[in-house]
Amino acid sequence: MPLLTRIKGPRDLDRLTQEQLVELSADIRTFLVEEVSKTGGHLGPNLGVVELTIALHRVFESPRDTILFDTGHQSYVHKLLTGRQDFSRLKRAGGLSGYPSRAESEHDVIENSHASTVLGWADGIAKGNERLGRRDHVVAVIGDGALTGGMAWEALNNIAAAKNRPLVIVVNDNEWSYSPTIGGLADHLATLRTTDGYEQFLARAKELLERTPVIGRPLYETLHGAKKGLKDFIAPQGMFEDLGLKYVGPIDGHDVAAVESALQRAKRFGGPVIVHCLTEKGRGYTHAEQDETDRFHGIGPIHPDTGLPVAEAGLDWTSVFGEEMVKLGREREDIVAITAAMLHPVGLTGFAKEFPERVYDVGIAEQHAATSAAGLATAGLHPVVAVYATFLNRAFDQVLMDVALHRCGVTFVLDRAGVTGSDGPSHNGMWDMSILQVVPGLRIAAPRDADQVRSQLREAVAVHDAPTVVRYSKGAVGPAVTAVGTVGGMDVLRAPTGGTDPDVLVVSVGALAPMCLEIAELLDAQGISSTVVDPRWVKPVDPALPGLAARHRVVVTVEDNGRTGGVGSCVAQALRDADVDMPVRDFGIPQEFLEHASRKEVMASVGLTAPDIARRVTGLVARLDGRVEGVTTAGAVQD
Amino acid sequence: MPLLTRIKGPRDLDRLTQEQLVELSADIRTFLVEEVSKTGGHLGPNLGVVELTIALHRVFESPRDTILFDTGHQSYVHKLLTGRQDFSRLKRAGGLSGYPSRAESEHDVIENSHASTVLGWADGIAKGNERLGRRDHVVAVIGDGALTGGMAWEALNNIAAAKNRPLVIVVNDNEWSYSPTIGGLADHLATLRTTDGYEQFLARAKELLERTPVIGRPLYETLHGAKKGLKDFIAPQGMFEDLGLKYVGPIDGHDVAAVESALQRAKRFGGPVIVHCLTEKGRGYTHAEQDETDRFHGIGPIHPDTGLPVAEAGLDWTSVFGEEMVKLGREREDIVAITAAMLHPVGLTGFAKEFPERVYDVGIAEQHAATSAAGLATAGLHPVVAVYATFLNRAFDQVLMDVALHRCGVTFVLDRAGVTGSDGPSHNGMWDMSILQVVPGLRIAAPRDADQVRSQLREAVAVHDAPTVVRYSKGAVGPAVTAVGTVGGMDVLRAPTGGTDPDVLVVSVGALAPMCLEIAELLDAQGISSTVVDPRWVKPVDPALPGLAARHRVVVTVEDNGRTGGVGSCVAQALRDADVDMPVRDFGIPQEFLEHASRKEVMASVGLTAPDIARRVTGLVARLDGRVEGVTTAGAVQD
Repeated sequence: MPLLTRIKGPRDLDRLTQEQLVELSADIRTFLVEEVSKTGGHLGPNLGVVELTIALHRVFESPRDTILFDTGHQSYVHKLLTGRQDFSRLKRAGGLSGYPSRAESEHDVIENSHASTVLGWADGIAKGNERLGRRDHVVAVIGDGALTGGMAWEALNNIAAAKNRPLVIVVNDNEWSYSPTIGGLADHLATLRTTDGYEQFLARAKELLERTPVIGRPLYETLHGAKKGLKDFIAPQGMFEDLGLKYVGPIDGHDVAAVESALQRAKRFGGPVIVHCLTEKGRGYTHAEQDETDRFHGIGPIHPDTGLPVAEAGLDWTSVFGEEMVKLGREREDIVAITAAMLHPVGLTGFAKEFPERVYDVGIAEQHAATSAAGLATAGLHPVVAVYATFLNRAFDQVLMDVALHRCGVTFVLDRAGVTGSDGPSHNGMWDMSILQVVPGLRIAAPRDADQVRSQLREAVAVHDAPTVVRYSKGAVGPAVTAVGTVGGMDVLRAPTGGTDPDVLVVSVGALAPMCLEIAELLDAQGISSTVVDPRWVKPVDPALPGLAARHRVVVTVEDNGRTGGVGSCVAQALRDADVDMPVRDFGIPQEFLEHASRKEVMASVGLTAPDIARRVTGLVARLDGRVEGVTTAGAVQD
Repeated sequence: MPLLTRIKGPRDLDRLTQEQLVELSADIRTFLVEEVSKTGGHLGPNLGVVELTIALHRVFESPRDTILFDTGHQSYVHKLLTGRQDFSRLKRAGGLSGYPSRAESEHDVIENSHASTVLGWADGIAKGNERLGRRDHVVAVIGDGALTGGMAWEALNNIAAAKNRPLVIVVNDNEWSYSPTIGGLADHLATLRTTDGYEQFLARAKELLERTPVIGRPLYETLHGAKKGLKDFIAPQGMFEDLGLKYVGPIDGHDVAAVESALQRAKRFGGPVIVHCLTEKGRGYTHAEQDETDRFHGIGPIHPDTGLPVAEAGLDWTSVFGEEMVKLGREREDIVAITAAMLHPVGLTGFAKEFPERVYDVGIAEQHAATSAAGLATAGLHPVVAVYATFLNRAFDQVLMDVALHRCGVTFVLDRAGVTGSDGPSHNGMWDMSILQVVPGLRIAAPRDADQVRSQLREAVAVHDAPTVVRYSKGAVGPAVTAVGTVGGMDVLRAPTGGTDPDVLVVSVGALAPMCLEIAELLDAQGISSTVVDPRWVKPVDPALPGLAARHRVVVTVEDNGRTGGVGSCVAQALRDADVDMPVRDFGIPQEFLEHASRKEVMASVGLTAPDIARRVTGLVARLDGRVEGVTTAGAVQD
């Protein structure tokens, strides 16, 4: 690939001919398929923006002009053009991030972020440039799907208010908002797509009116009297222009020259402009082009020739949920499903196939997912909102004020909870069990294995007067972990060996059950006896927990969630409320943004491993025994 | 008021003549001014929807048809027409809620809620009706301001997708989205407002085209060829129709007959329709009509004749912030302010007057407030986002992923934090110190008095590489509370009397400092000595706190925030992390939705008073002394 390797920075693009740009595009596609098939990553989205990204860097001067990518997973081409061509450790510890990263390049601005944020960033930066007297351009690339997010609307509204801030919105329209259930905007974009002849039409209509002054003029003036000029009544781009945004398009996003020309026009305009580019996700890679389930949006390692995964995954959490939903759908007519533009990834494919009229895809619109679920529940149905754990942050207020305050029977199923790893800080599901703890009346289940997913989902949909949450991890579900008994509503996973009262109560949360059992074994080896319980429902704290805790010397909680305000914190509070004053140690994810790395690496780096936890608990018990110096009830402060 | 008192339910409206409806409207206005001037409440918004609400109840059959109000503060007329005419204890304990309330009436559906939610509810209920085979109408009343919220967009998009669900959106356009900085939608609505003659124009244009077949026909077909029919090119309501929503309007919202006629048309249509009503906030009450600062949106008791407050309030938290912002604005050019459509209520009037070009009113769009602030900070400015505490819930994800992850120097100023009382569950600011605790790198200040607001605001805007939060209460600021010393970064408000180590460390949060000092006195009277500290910054926990705590026997935290995951919870965690295992009791708001009542009543009902807390702490110390039976390190579970 001689051409690509010669590109050390964006300005190296300037001297290439159109033929060389075509060659470069082909080079980039070959590179992406070869490299991303090895490491995994967002193959489809990046194959779709090759020409677009080249044109952006030819027309605008990054970093003086600010180029921003929504979500950021389509920034691989941008990386290749800005001096980053070693993809060998993409998304792995120490390798390139799968998103823009300010540590990697001065050309990167927004790092990990959730969808639909880019227009807000662009508006802020453009306002800042204006205040500081800069006339540099701000360019925001956003997918048609992300335009369905409420933040995009809030931003468009603000961007349109200022006619003089140079801000270019590139709509990367690959038809992913076009699900039949995602209406208004998708329909409007579809209309726009069919109007390639707009500019010719404009000329023709003008000519017609000019040729007929008798009729044309009154008609023109009539229209004008209605506060609409000639432009408005023939312009098919109604909505955006109505909002006060200049519209350029639609443009073939795979024709570098056409995109460049459109961007040049937008650049010269000097105010807010929308450039509507039509692209194809997975372009140039047959397996991706022919796929209908968006399987190549984000992939693990694949065989590049076949497009098939290198490693066949075992049964995963998502599938267990998906299969149980189909069964529930057959049993109960009142169960409906809601997805925020992620039907396949959250496991609703089967349910949608069997009950197409009972699935609502609301777009990238988690707020609407939650509030419309409150409405559905109020009408008498039981909605199951399936979403990635980290994305529910978007709907916190709606879960609180619409669903919980109104005591609506809605089940939220949170996939990808806990450390997910390679996608970096925005994708770790480490917030849900903290922020949802504050929601009055809401219950949270953290199933530990496949059987528990099934049974706790059933327990959740049986509740009609309050919201419930079922949260589970990413990837393969572990082996079944059988209970050896129960205390209150809690499953005892391991009873202490020996006759006397045990030393340690280990409270295990969700998928960490096997780790907690391992901790117990390691403690045993140190002569420390322990009980391991899985409360199953981690909110509210089981009423039997304080009493059980009181029969131990130490309580240890282990969760795959941020430590602040998490399950451990709530267990400790429940003990205080019950006047059970005893040492508690809560293990979880430290409250930090976690760099991309494998899940295993991240867990090790934050000390969430059985040996780490066992060692720390052993130290605490030794101190309580007085075997080492340290803390008493009110003792030394430092660890 | 003979006519109003004869209305026992909506159907009593059916037999009234148009003249009687005018009389009834006047009755209602007189009632509202007389009653709300006594109790306080949302006077302006309700005066604006008198005719609209009457028309709604004449055209639709509540509760079979579902009538929904966005935010709900404009539901007083609805209450009067649905059997609730005793306003004597409006918003007080045991009296009528200031919002719809399902406990009050079968005609109420959405209770307290934040702005822009109603379309999501409507979409959900309409979907539910469709699933269950009902053809009843869903009617959603939303202000033009609330349409700027992202949720409204998400919902419009979904509503437009289904052509057969009978759903009427009434836009109550009182021009409150029309701030010059809130662009796109406001401009579009303004255009629509000026097109009263639309229907006449339609007829005229059609006639013109028909009279000139030679030209008219080709023009028509040209337009049609561009996939736009006659309707589209002359219709001024572009945006909504482009989204696939039928538009009816604009209508004079104070003409009952006109509104009824429009609603009847909308009802017959049977699919999603927007009815655009023009209304005047404060209509019929001269003082409100002439006010330009929206002072009558929500009022305390006033003299009805003068419109002036009955009680002149002392210095309030908001003004202290507002005045300091003006000073900061003069000192630092890089400081800009952001408000979400609440310039006056959050205290930015003075700043906006002096620095109009440095204030950004983003609309009812908290998400955009946060993310555009990240952009402004990235450009090199320091934005101060001023918002009510409870409304920041809307932007949790943006504070986390856009502002904090990117380490942007943004200051969030949260007004109305803690128990606010009379507005009920949606307005108590009891969530912020819990959910914000999970945001890595963010710092939270809880100033205890006016001086602290000033100095902590200055400390906040001095931080350029991380977000900070300054949160304070509603209403009058209390007297200054002077520090008698410091430990680490904490202010000691009261040193223990006597020479030995004190029993209790009281950690006071924000405005509760006087209460904590009172607790200390009550404890003193029981022979229990205590230290009172104000950590000032409640996140992160001051590193000196565990060491100080270890010199006491008990730690007590007192905060005006939900207990779950709050300051107390984080203090307890910090002690555990420092191996300081000692009894902690965290006092705060129980994690429940609080019914409307005065702040004082609410605080008493949840046990947040000095005597309550002192009594509980005295009991605990007695138990630790062994003076009463109860808990030891691992003792009884029940309190």
